[in-house]
Amino acid sequence: MTSLVNDLEAPPHIIRDLASQALAEDIGPGDATSQAVISPSVQAAGQFVAKQAGIMAGMAVARQCFQQLSPKVHFATLKQAGERFETAEVLAEVEGAARALLAAERTALNFLQRLCGVATLTRQFVDATAHAKAQIADTRKTTPGVRALDRAAVRAGGGKNHRRALYDGILIKDNHIRLAGSIAEAVASARSNVHYLFKIEVETTSLDQVREAVAAGADIIMLDNMSIEMMHEAVAIIGDQALIEASGGIDLSNVAEVAATGVDLISVGTLTHSAPSLDISLELRPVP
Amino acid sequence: MTSLVNDLEAPPHIIRDLASQALAEDIGPGDATSQAVISPSVQAAGQFVAKQAGIMAGMAVARQCFQQLSPKVHFATLKQAGERFETAEVLAEVEGAARALLAAERTALNFLQRLCGVATLTRQFVDATAHAKAQIADTRKTTPGVRALDRAAVRAGGGKNHRRALYDGILIKDNHIRLAGSIAEAVASARSNVHYLFKIEVETTSLDQVREAVAAGADIIMLDNMSIEMMHEAVAIIGDQALIEASGGIDLSNVAEVAATGVDLISVGTLTHSAPSLDISLELRPVP
Amino acid sequence: MTSLVNDLEAPPHIIRDLASQALAEDIGPGDATSQAVISPSVQAAGQFVAKQAGIMAGMAVARQCFQQLSPKVHFATLKQAGERFETAEVLAEVEGAARALLAAERTALNFLQRLCGVATLTRQFVDATAHAKAQIADTRKTTPGVRALDRAAVRAGGGKNHRRALYDGILIKDNHIRLAGSIAEAVASARSNVHYLFKIEVETTSLDQVREAVAAGADIIMLDNMSIEMMHEAVAIIGDQALIEASGGIDLSNVAEVAATGVDLISVGTLTHSAPSLDISLELRPVP
Amino acid sequence: MTSLVNDLEAPPHIIRDLASQALAEDIGPGDATSQAVISPSVQAAGQFVAKQAGIMAGMAVARQCFQQLSPKVHFATLKQAGERFETAEVLAEVEGAARALLAAERTALNFLQRLCGVATLTRQFVDATAHAKAQIADTRKTTPGVRALDRAAVRAGGGKNHRRALYDGILIKDNHIRLAGSIAEAVASARSNVHYLFKIEVETTSLDQVREAVAAGADIIMLDNMSIEMMHEAVAIIGDQALIEASGGIDLSNVAEVAATGVDLISVGTLTHSAPSLDISLELRPVP
Amino acid sequence: MTSLVNDLEAPPHIIRDLASQALAEDIGPGDATSQAVISPSVQAAGQFVAKQAGIMAGMAVARQCFQQLSPKVHFATLKQAGERFETAEVLAEVEGAARALLAAERTALNFLQRLCGVATLTRQFVDATAHAKAQIADTRKTTPGVRALDRAAVRAGGGKNHRRALYDGILIKDNHIRLAGSIAEAVASARSNVHYLFKIEVETTSLDQVREAVAAGADIIMLDNMSIEMMHEAVAIIGDQALIEASGGIDLSNVAEVAATGVDLISVGTLTHSAPSLDISLELRPVP
Amino acid sequence: MTSLVNDLEAPPHIIRDLASQALAEDIGPGDATSQAVISPSVQAAGQFVAKQAGIMAGMAVARQCFQQLSPKVHFATLKQAGERFETAEVLAEVEGAARALLAAERTALNFLQRLCGVATLTRQFVDATAHAKAQIADTRKTTPGVRALDRAAVRAGGGKNHRRALYDGILIKDNHIRLAGSIAEAVASARSNVHYLFKIEVETTSLDQVREAVAAGADIIMLDNMSIEMMHEAVAIIGDQALIEASGGIDLSNVAEVAATGVDLISVGTLTHSAPSLDISLELRPVP
Repeated sequence: MTSLVNDLEAPPHIIRDLASQALAEDIGPGDATSQAVISPSVQAAGQFVAKQAGIMAGMAVARQCFQQLSPKVHFATLKQAGERFETAEVLAEVEGAARALLAAERTALNFLQRLCGVATLTRQFVDATAHAKAQIADTRKTTPGVRALDRAAVRAGGGKNHRRALYDGILIKDNHIRLAGSIAEAVASARSNVHYLFKIEVETTSLDQVREAVAAGADIIMLDNMSIEMMHEAVAIIGDQALIEASGGIDLSNVAEVAATGVDLISVGTLTHSAPSLDISLELRPVP
Repeated sequence: MTSLVNDLEAPPHIIRDLASQALAEDIGPGDATSQAVISPSVQAAGQFVAKQAGIMAGMAVARQCFQQLSPKVHFATLKQAGERFETAEVLAEVEGAARALLAAERTALNFLQRLCGVATLTRQFVDATAHAKAQIADTRKTTPGVRALDRAAVRAGGGKNHRRALYDGILIKDNHIRLAGSIAEAVASARSNVHYLFKIEVETTSLDQVREAVAAGADIIMLDNMSIEMMHEAVAIIGDQALIEASGGIDLSNVAEVAATGVDLISVGTLTHSAPSLDISLELRPVP
Repeated sequence: MTSLVNDLEAPPHIIRDLASQALAEDIGPGDATSQAVISPSVQAAGQFVAKQAGIMAGMAVARQCFQQLSPKVHFATLKQAGERFETAEVLAEVEGAARALLAAERTALNFLQRLCGVATLTRQFVDATAHAKAQIADTRKTTPGVRALDRAAVRAGGGKNHRRALYDGILIKDNHIRLAGSIAEAVASARSNVHYLFKIEVETTSLDQVREAVAAGADIIMLDNMSIEMMHEAVAIIGDQALIEASGGIDLSNVAEVAATGVDLISVGTLTHSAPSLDISLELRPVP
Repeated sequence: MTSLVNDLEAPPHIIRDLASQALAEDIGPGDATSQAVISPSVQAAGQFVAKQAGIMAGMAVARQCFQQLSPKVHFATLKQAGERFETAEVLAEVEGAARALLAAERTALNFLQRLCGVATLTRQFVDATAHAKAQIADTRKTTPGVRALDRAAVRAGGGKNHRRALYDGILIKDNHIRLAGSIAEAVASARSNVHYLFKIEVETTSLDQVREAVAAGADIIMLDNMSIEMMHEAVAIIGDQALIEASGGIDLSNVAEVAATGVDLISVGTLTHSAPSLDISLELRPVP
Repeated sequence: MTSLVNDLEAPPHIIRDLASQALAEDIGPGDATSQAVISPSVQAAGQFVAKQAGIMAGMAVARQCFQQLSPKVHFATLKQAGERFETAEVLAEVEGAARALLAAERTALNFLQRLCGVATLTRQFVDATAHAKAQIADTRKTTPGVRALDRAAVRAGGGKNHRRALYDGILIKDNHIRLAGSIAEAVASARSNVHYLFKIEVETTSLDQVREAVAAGADIIMLDNMSIEMMHEAVAIIGDQALIEASGGIDLSNVAEVAATGVDLISVGTLTHSAPSLDISLELRPVP
Repeated sequence: MTSLVNDLEAPPHIIRDLASQALAEDIGPGDATSQAVISPSVQAAGQFVAKQAGIMAGMAVARQCFQQLSPKVHFATLKQAGERFETAEVLAEVEGAARALLAAERTALNFLQRLCGVATLTRQFVDATAHAKAQIADTRKTTPGVRALDRAAVRAGGGKNHRRALYDGILIKDNHIRLAGSIAEAVASARSNVHYLFKIEVETTSLDQVREAVAAGADIIMLDNMSIEMMHEAVAIIGDQALIEASGGIDLSNVAEVAATGVDLISVGTLTHSAPSLDISLELRPVP
């Protein structure tokens, strides 16, 4: 039984809408240069070439950019989401009306370079924790507007997705606890108010809070910005009474240590808020 | 006569639309946790605190996130766009219905952390070229959907904006040249086809292309991915026959050298495609 | 600690959008009769009067209909969501430009009569099970487009909401089981693929399936269309190993018996798909 | 010359928009259960089976729900709008990607069950008045958002549609009369202000008002909530000077008597505001 | 009892939407010139001055253009819709942020000059037929997108509006007749298929067709492109059996003659498809 | 090297959106007449016939109107954009479902008649200046909403397009000059604030202003509403220091004289704000 939800591309309707919005942002009422310089009848072809090694993500939205401008564009995907590629490898080939290719080029590359960057960084975290049970997960720290794409890129990199948004999960954070009065009150309130299908996660920053969360019956306990030592203690306190998530201040230099504490899940904001763009080029040539 | 266009925030209607779209992405039909844990009548207040030093950008869209959820939220901006702040400085204060503050928190921070990241990196490039005439400029390498915010953050960092998009400027790039046949043909075609108010920029990668662009009467010549040495030669060839833009492969380690070649403009994709997020927190407390 | 999530009106932005769409449907480019018969300067006032006893719901969207047509309309709510009213009671008063009142009248009444109908029927189910622990809940069997309003009306009637939609909960139904192969396979697949914050509910139609669901570790087990007798057996089998939901074929004549079996939750499609409209009138008079 | 306008389905663009909006409401960013439990490659097939006898309506929008999610879904309509079906009859067959079928299932059934309910109730009224000249018509008492579908279901049941909305007909109601001063003034004003292609209907509640409406030259006179006896007198007063519509308080128990008074049209709000949902199921099985 | 429907401005929500769409068309992501040349703090004031005499229309949408860009703009309307103005008269005054005034200027003038053009031409037709009973009416020959504004301008000029669109009236034209078989068949079909509140108009081009239309019971008969002589005969044939509309080929040189034939209504496409723009200027000055 | 940007139709996505919006305006929820009179199965065919000679424009949007209503409509374009046609020539042929043809007819004709009017008038100006170097250009004086179509019609007539809108060019007009203080200040401010790819145009109304604009280094100088004599002097003053545009008060009676002054560009508002509609008919016949 293989992983099902981890389809490695975002849902088609979201890809379609984001490509359309991004093309509107960059093309608006028209591509002034190409319309002035390239005849409508010119055909062109070209290759997407990796300038760095990495993990593929975002090919579906890149392809969509071209196809929205001209349904006749031929786009051949050579690397699928989740596949590794080396410097100078050809990732995809495109052929069609030159004006359409030129108008979509930058938008497609903006998506592709960002998303390959996210997938590549995610894979580094996954590889760094390969021998532990802990899974690497994303957070809601995404660039507004493209979360569904960022999440798919994390999956392509081998990571897990956390909740999508505020509407599909209960995560009681520090601010909720302060405003609700205590962990106990917050958890009780959550339990009596939400529908029956939600579990309850509580964010903790001290061992006392960890104990409170256990006592309150939290299903998942997040250890936020704790030292490695404190995490060890927390894991011991919790045992199998709840799932354990580590979060905050985790980077490639310390993620293996975090995983070694025995947590179940490590969520990493850096995956989506600070992954550097991966360099990819598209060079076009005329075709008869 | 001060700089006018460089208003340091994006246009109000774009801020409004992007905040609205981002809130929809994260909140959707409702914030499950806060609705289950926090009574609608609870009021809260809190401070945005910098966890790193940097340059402010994005405050207007962060504020907009809160005000769209509740017009009664009080939001006090303590650092204006373009101002420098230190670690632990308070950047803004917010007070209002706890549910509204909690629902907007992550979206506002996602904007703010990204845009302060862009402004802070831009300022580093600007500072590194302070003694040269060259100006630091952005590119179209932005995350799809938020370009107007990215551009304002570049201005807040002290950079210049390049053209907005494909519709408001003529930039003949390598792909155009190959498809049009030659620089001479591309420039002539552009000149006879676009309206009278556009200048014409040509991207070059060799000194031969630089000479061709000068001969074709290009108004601006971009030196793409040239070595420092080649840039010196290109600058000598062009003289005052065109404005000169350097682009490609420029980072903080070499930007001063690039500026010293005498180019007028240095455009840097990294400003917007790979600026790391700047760490900022929002801690809320109940208010009576 | 009172119930928090059960705010008895739908979220304000949904109310605003649905009122706007409904007014567009009924008014379109203009109210031909009122524009031809009533001068723009005529002011009017009137009362919403109940023609039947019932439970209030939908007042917020009714009010919104008037206020979207004229911000100057005065609308006084005399019965809040969830309150009981008798025949001939005045539910609300409205005063303002006659043309605006006439144009909004039918749309406001269409909402109000439907939603009071839902709340009133829900209250009958709730009253019928008052002495059992079981809670009455809604389903996804709503009229397309107005689910958020239907759900709020169920809360106003004293019911609980089930999951909102397909995106915020895992409910493995008969079709999923047949397509996945077995309850065991479906539950295992769900557990490994969804994020950590979702519980897993399984629909069962036989005692064998109930046992399978318990063995698979389902968090909630739905007894679908079972006889009262079979429900008793199922409740005994499950014990406290999972929450228990009864569903299918439940009406006012048998709901008390269902509740007496010891189930935790009774979901009733009739609440939203077949609640009869409750009769309410609005009579206007000119005011000087 | 057969009836032309009474196409028995709503216009295609409205069906498309309502299906799309309804799917968004129920699926949002994704069907969590099916994505976690069913592999994207699984194919399924199934049958819509009637659990009660009735009249078909809404098949076009149900079909649209499936086709919007996957253009490759095969959907075979076995009962056309307006046709009668018995308990256990197969109404339609569907085959395609299991995830698409599961995601569209509830939305399609919500439409179908409501609209068959409306058509079935309408047919009962039509049958009850089969020997009189009176026609059964709908009203504007529809669930906001789905009026075009409700109207088509009324036609499928054999009823007539009244005006669509406020913009395409003149109906002077009690509130208009009170605000305009008198029936005479209201009719005169209407006649001089609207375009030449509208007739004028007046609602009356007493025989004096009926006489006034006749004197004012109303083209159609509505007898609102009158007793059978009063209707007889009204019909006698009006003769062939105007068309006559009965409305208000009419149900299956008295509609034949109303028809026997000789009115031309009987409008019935119950058709659309209180028709009970008709029970239909969809059972899926895997196909190789 | 004055004319009520002839409110001389379009409905507010249409004005708002059209202003917003028109501003987006002209300003897009920003007014490059004003942002580069005028400081955000500069305030300005100015007057709309007529360069030709005419009839006012469109002031509400012009005002809306300014107010959408800045709610603080002060806009004083000096000439109301329907009022006559002379060359050099001041029509309105505006004061506020210079950038907002400059950005809205052209869009506001484009609306105002077109709509005053329509109103002024309409008034000329109305004046030319002042001594006859015939009323001047518009047609559906409007520029796509702005029909509601064109219709209001016709009312401001003293004209009547014909049906709004295809959805609110029955007009059987030459193409319908050819396709339906005959006038008799078309009218009978219309009568049995549409709702009870529509009258039926038939377009005729010969006296035989006029006789057929009378025989079929048409409520209104249009005389399309007939000679003055033929119109006299048609009027005689029809008598008071139907209302009579003249249409086609009517201009200021012959409209009085047409009116003199005794028709009730003269519809003139030129009013909206070929009215020349009326010249109006806006001159701004700085204010302290 | 032929003219490339002057594609003679507007961009496809704009054509699609405007056709869709225009059809919604005219058809709304349905074409009452055709639905009542013409059976859904009737097929028809017809020809667009010119009633006046002229220049073709707008065929793509007219065709789009039909195809949006029914993809099966066959539409054969017989005259391409920019081609001349004579009275009685057939411009296009259409065949398909009669209801679709009837519903699209008026909207298609409204577009076609307006746009052929614009193209035909433009061609008259172009012909009148055929022996001079001056090019005829459009302005921003278009009917709000349809600018892209108007601009394409100007190209079809042989004219040049000026800037699209406020966002893609710098044109310092009288109001800017007054508010900025002087031409010198305005130009300097523009130069330091906009991106490098924009030229700068200055509007002048006196010879002193012309000299100021030359001194300020304006790239283009507009001579606004100058006498022929003054234009001659301005052209002499400017020489080859800037491009020269004449504008204001130019009509077919004086455009040749204006061109003879030696200006480079003549912009004419009349082309789009006052071009009379060109008469075209569509006659349908049944086909078996």
